[in-house]
Amino acid sequence: MQVVETLEELQSARGNLPSPFGIVPTMGYLHEGHLSLARWAKRECASVGVSIFVNPTQFGPQEDLEAYPRDIDRDLDLLKAEGVDLVWMPTVEVMYPLGFQTWVDVDALTQVLEGARRPGHFRGVTTVVAKLFNAMQPNRAYFGQKDAQQAAVIRRMVVDLNFPIEIIVCPIVREADGLAMSSRNSYLDPAQRTAATVLHRALTAAVGAYEEGQRDAEALRSMMIEILSTEPLARVQYVSVADPETLLELSGSIERALLSLAVFVGKTRLIDNMLVGMAKSTER
Amino acid sequence: MQVVETLEELQSARGNLPSPFGIVPTMGYLHEGHLSLARWAKRECASVGVSIFVNPTQFGPQEDLEAYPRDIDRDLDLLKAEGVDLVWMPTVEVMYPLGFQTWVDVDALTQVLEGARRPGHFRGVTTVVAKLFNAMQPNRAYFGQKDAQQAAVIRRMVVDLNFPIEIIVCPIVREADGLAMSSRNSYLDPAQRTAATVLHRALTAAVGAYEEGQRDAEALRSMMIEILSTEPLARVQYVSVADPETLLELSGSIERALLSLAVFVGKTRLIDNMLVGMAKSTER
Repeated sequence: MQVVETLEELQSARGNLPSPFGIVPTMGYLHEGHLSLARWAKRECASVGVSIFVNPTQFGPQEDLEAYPRDIDRDLDLLKAEGVDLVWMPTVEVMYPLGFQTWVDVDALTQVLEGARRPGHFRGVTTVVAKLFNAMQPNRAYFGQKDAQQAAVIRRMVVDLNFPIEIIVCPIVREADGLAMSSRNSYLDPAQRTAATVLHRALTAAVGAYEEGQRDAEALRSMMIEILSTEPLARVQYVSVADPETLLELSGSIERALLSLAVFVGKTRLIDNMLVGMAKSTER
Repeated sequence: MQVVETLEELQSARGNLPSPFGIVPTMGYLHEGHLSLARWAKRECASVGVSIFVNPTQFGPQEDLEAYPRDIDRDLDLLKAEGVDLVWMPTVEVMYPLGFQTWVDVDALTQVLEGARRPGHFRGVTTVVAKLFNAMQPNRAYFGQKDAQQAAVIRRMVVDLNFPIEIIVCPIVREADGLAMSSRNSYLDPAQRTAATVLHRALTAAVGAYEEGQRDAEALRSMMIEILSTEPLARVQYVSVADPETLLELSGSIERALLSLAVFVGKTRLIDNMLVGMAKSTER
């Protein structure tokens, strides 16, 4: 496994890797969710690259950039064990050199949900992902359904800017009790960790109700809010029943939807989501 | 010479062309300036592509999108004669399909000169050029020094977003009397056509003064304004003596500069520029 830092090292290493080349963009502190993406890539591509970069431009001024957990040695051991061929770990100076001033923006899709609560977040995400795509030249890129809006935004960017790259969105990987894997789970103390399962319980209840015939968007939202309100350590930021493509809130009777939540448990902001009414075969 | 319209046709045609592949992005109605770019590309690349697309997103609401001259048959004859391998002529629907919402912005460099007078122009340029780069997958792209700010903005975008593409800026091609070639010269009636030479005369005078030792930015600006004011059909929009990299206006004693002008002759807006104090060997 080759580990590189500069653009020159990256381009030279990339040139020696066979296509199709699949990449998994990460911010490190890897968990099973990331590793599942590397495994999907490994299964489907002739070579696999992973980027590790805690991207400052996607953090707001009040967010956890400084506190964001890091453990590079462990990350590299895990990726080596998965048979990853190339790891790119650029510094901030490599990614954002002096004079940097170019940004990629996706408009409407970033105005709702996460984008509405985290101004500038998606500008940072789309810009760094465009850079990763150009620098790493993948044929395929793997993202997690955990960040459902991010996946939708990146799919849109790829179509709109004609990137010759296939975007593959893989299922959320969960702990045994249902909590979606996240590097930010490491912020939780034991009581908060227990409380955090309420996101999964709320989503599961709504999906169960949908499967038993509940099609009213407001009823599904209310059901999730009610379950979340039973957990005193949880503070709801949003509960959404939205169109899976436009991400606009639905009302009345729905056919398919993205159910998504953002909830603070202590100071830790957790997100989770489930899809209803979608053919599962279109995704990994 | 293969002429294609859809993305699928383009990708298939591109796959059969040898690298290095050089491209010349154009809006059609080709003149010797464009053809000189195709010749540079032909000389330096194993295959050459030209795009022809009158990009609506780089025209302001009060600008000449509808009036912009078009002559596709002539364009294709000219490109065939130059030995161009591939011409891509996308429709507006191919470039901007329903739901399009992703934009590429370069910040500070687009706030001055042309960008200050044509709000949104460079957002349209950088977005469409990013799309051309991703769709055509060139190794090199050729632009004219005529649009000096555009060249600087695209160079910045390529560095900032890590496009693996070499940007090559080629000299302005001029008519016998010095008028810079432009598709918009076709708007000029005979009296205006004569008056239009005043841009070149103003620039030549300033370059001459620089070469004879005049280093004061304000003196060079005044000299150009004075010459332009002798032409009753010309109305100056701006006269600039700017840093060739940052494009910020210079004052006091200068070493090197981009001298640039925007002048209305009748309703036709003309631009032109010359560099002083630059090593000529860095450009074609």
